[in-house]
Amino acid sequence: MDAAEFRRRGKEMVDFVADYQENIEHRRVYPDVEPGYLRSMIPSEAPLEPESYEDVLRDVDRVIMPGVTHWLSPHFYAYYANSTSFPSILADLLSSGIGTIGFTWAANPACSELETVMLDWLGKMLQLPEDFLSETQGQGGGVIQGTASEATLMALLSARLKTVKCVQESDPQRSEADIISKLIAYTSEEAHSSVEKASIIGGVVIRMVPTDEHFSVRAETLEKMVAEDKATGYIPFFFCATLGTTPCCAFDKIDELGPICNAENIWMHIDAAYAGCAFICPEFRPLLNGVEFADSFSINPNKFLLVGFDCSAIMMWVLKGFYFFLPLHLFSTSLSPHLSSDSQHWGIPMARRFRSLKLWFVFRMYGLRGLQAFIRKHVELAKTFENLVRGDNNFEICAEVVMGLVCFRLKGSDELNKALLKQITRTGKIYLVPCKLRGRFVLRFVVCGRTTELRHIQEAWKHITELSSELLQNLFDHEGKEN
Amino acid sequence: MDAAEFRRRGKEMVDFVADYQENIEHRRVYPDVEPGYLRSMIPSEAPLEPESYEDVLRDVDRVIMPGVTHWLSPHFYAYYANSTSFPSILADLLSSGIGTIGFTWAANPACSELETVMLDWLGKMLQLPEDFLSETQGQGGGVIQGTASEATLMALLSARLKTVKCVQESDPQRSEADIISKLIAYTSEEAHSSVEKASIIGGVVIRMVPTDEHFSVRAETLEKMVAEDKATGYIPFFFCATLGTTPCCAFDKIDELGPICNAENIWMHIDAAYAGCAFICPEFRPLLNGVEFADSFSINPNKFLLVGFDCSAIMMWVLKGFYFFLPLHLFSTSLSPHLSSDSQHWGIPMARRFRSLKLWFVFRMYGLRGLQAFIRKHVELAKTFENLVRGDNNFEICAEVVMGLVCFRLKGSDELNKALLKQITRTGKIYLVPCKLRGRFVLRFVVCGRTTELRHIQEAWKHITELSSELLQNLFDHEGKEN
Repeated sequence: MDAAEFRRRGKEMVDFVADYQENIEHRRVYPDVEPGYLRSMIPSEAPLEPESYEDVLRDVDRVIMPGVTHWLSPHFYAYYANSTSFPSILADLLSSGIGTIGFTWAANPACSELETVMLDWLGKMLQLPEDFLSETQGQGGGVIQGTASEATLMALLSARLKTVKCVQESDPQRSEADIISKLIAYTSEEAHSSVEKASIIGGVVIRMVPTDEHFSVRAETLEKMVAEDKATGYIPFFFCATLGTTPCCAFDKIDELGPICNAENIWMHIDAAYAGCAFICPEFRPLLNGVEFADSFSINPNKFLLVGFDCSAIMMWVLKGFYFFLPLHLFSTSLSPHLSSDSQHWGIPMARRFRSLKLWFVFRMYGLRGLQAFIRKHVELAKTFENLVRGDNNFEICAEVVMGLVCFRLKGSDELNKALLKQITRTGKIYLVPCKLRGRFVLRFVVCGRTTELRHIQEAWKHITELSSELLQNLFDHEGKEN
Repeated sequence: MDAAEFRRRGKEMVDFVADYQENIEHRRVYPDVEPGYLRSMIPSEAPLEPESYEDVLRDVDRVIMPGVTHWLSPHFYAYYANSTSFPSILADLLSSGIGTIGFTWAANPACSELETVMLDWLGKMLQLPEDFLSETQGQGGGVIQGTASEATLMALLSARLKTVKCVQESDPQRSEADIISKLIAYTSEEAHSSVEKASIIGGVVIRMVPTDEHFSVRAETLEKMVAEDKATGYIPFFFCATLGTTPCCAFDKIDELGPICNAENIWMHIDAAYAGCAFICPEFRPLLNGVEFADSFSINPNKFLLVGFDCSAIMMWVLKGFYFFLPLHLFSTSLSPHLSSDSQHWGIPMARRFRSLKLWFVFRMYGLRGLQAFIRKHVELAKTFENLVRGDNNFEICAEVVMGLVCFRLKGSDELNKALLKQITRTGKIYLVPCKLRGRFVLRFVVCGRTTELRHIQEAWKHITELSSELLQNLFDHEGKEN
């Protein structure tokens, strides 16, 4: 395929994407395929000779689209969103099209530098302390990771090495392996599984901290656990706070947890993957009070800021902390205006796509006010859904609705709620996933779509109540027969 | 921006990319900017109100392009390539445009399943042992990682947990921390820095294995080190072999190393990021003999198979090995037809872009023969360059030329060669990076561009010899004066 054909095919693909997004709400949001559906639909090996583009595109319709879960549909209410937008898609196309890769400054100066400045823009939008910005020419700053899992891992590894060095300063004979074997990390019992995964990779013990009635970690609980563990010879070194937990979007009380972490030399990382994006709105910013005690902070613009996956931002008051885990001879000697310019050291992968273009395009095409309006609309729609649930006596709300997530369930058994979700998934008109809260099976309804409107919320609720009425009627009939 | 505007802007962007690639050779390949150039060119914070798309695009030309190192230029001979192509860019646009994300099977069945089948296609193209394929319904198979650094880390972590379990079977009282503190990994002194980085993350000791005169690790060297380390109480557990090292594209002798690893219960991972792609050509496949002894194998289609960054493939004869490092309760219960369907467990990040589309588009649009022809052309161009170097008595070849990389230098001091590279970089007509071989400063010339032709190689050589003649003349004049 030469440039001339690319012009033609590229424009067709742009139309394909535009058509897809314009008509997406008429598609079944959850695919009607069985596991293993695809293998038999395509050859078992690559072709020897080139095939035509028409054939490939035909197979996109025939093989791929029937097996796609439509994350961009207004009927998609699962997980947290892939919050993409047209400007983000354009920036991604530019990134793919020019194909330049960043790792040292020299490998792609524009990539290194735009990323540093965009993370400063983001830090200012979030009103982070100045120490988290690189423009102050201190040690702080931010970099883009692919996902929050990577951001959490990077924070934990940085904390691990910092603590090892710190312990060895007062006890030079103690081996690194011995110190690591005594390290202990903490996170909420409601935290994302990637925190535990990071602790396994880092080879350190982790304890899950119980939460209060709002699913928040509180200071006295952590304080007690730290004291217990120190008494048995452990070295508390890392606490991953969550602002906006995955199950129910709960918030740890970082303003009371931070001082404890600081006093105990515990690295406090804040995982605010979804909810942190909303801190660009003044009305939500108070939830971030206490960030001044944190060592690192991360959010995923791809979850709630109209930037396409993958894009997770981590900001640290001492970005140099990342260096803790690399020996000096791995450093390149490129002419870096700032530490963060050699991005190869700031993550597991060495090289990176030009992802900051997505942030730049989106921040400029929406403006801060446009992004705030987007977030507020989602929160408002969630409140509307909450009110619909509260208005129906068969249902209950299971956690405070702060942002775009509503946790709810039918009053009754887990089995009843599982049956309801099964019906919802089987029907395929809307898509939700469940969670467990205090051991109970709960449905999560997350406003995800960029194009989700009031009518979609109303339709979704109507659909849920129709399915639940059938279920309850069947149950009633069944119980009637049994009596 | 709505779908209608996206149609217009998207088509403009397609033309922008096509124009860029059609005219790329007239651009200065290495940018003429100083570190820190960008910050003063754009505002220090995000705009409050939306800006126009025209303004954003104008700034792409004004701010970004002057700071880009043009990886897709035929004048780019640095690192290893970002080997992208138009079908890959189209597939990436499709992936961004439909925005569906994979991690469980249910989150995106098409993504999970196409990835599994594409890795089987790739495994067959490479003639990997059947155990590395998932279609045999054994425990093997492949998944896509972002980069080779991640693939290496995943292999090392899997090996670590496998060994811990193995040791604990015979000695249940021994703690995990104690075992890990005794683990020792090995890799070539010529290996990529990501192997050492992986060992640091995994908290294990690593030893660099000296190489023979061809920069290859040999069996007897490794065998001796393993014996020494066992004698002092270490547990050898991981060897990362390299096929196609970063400095000079050397090949470890895996056919003689494999049996030792198997006998010693050492996990052998093969990092063949660049050169492994060429094993789809029968004439290069013998370099992979011995893969049957390996536990895992990875290549980067984005380096040499016309697939855009990021795309690294890892195949394991026991993909289940990855599970070693995750506790059972982190597993989802989705209906997986095969282990690899829940891709969230097969890497550091949980979620993933729909990257297998890139493989599918490229494999089909080029066919196996088209990909082989692409590789052979690059190798042939490198041989041409090698002959040009050999024909000039001022220069020497520093390592055997097997694929697309030529290591060469001016006969003379490191300072002389550094001066030459400095002139090359300052002139900006072509772009190379150096390496060290046996302590000497060496220039690397890698055929990278999809559109690199014979005339570019000849021009590059003419440019290099002109600059070197000037340098040598100056040196001669200077020495003449001194005498």
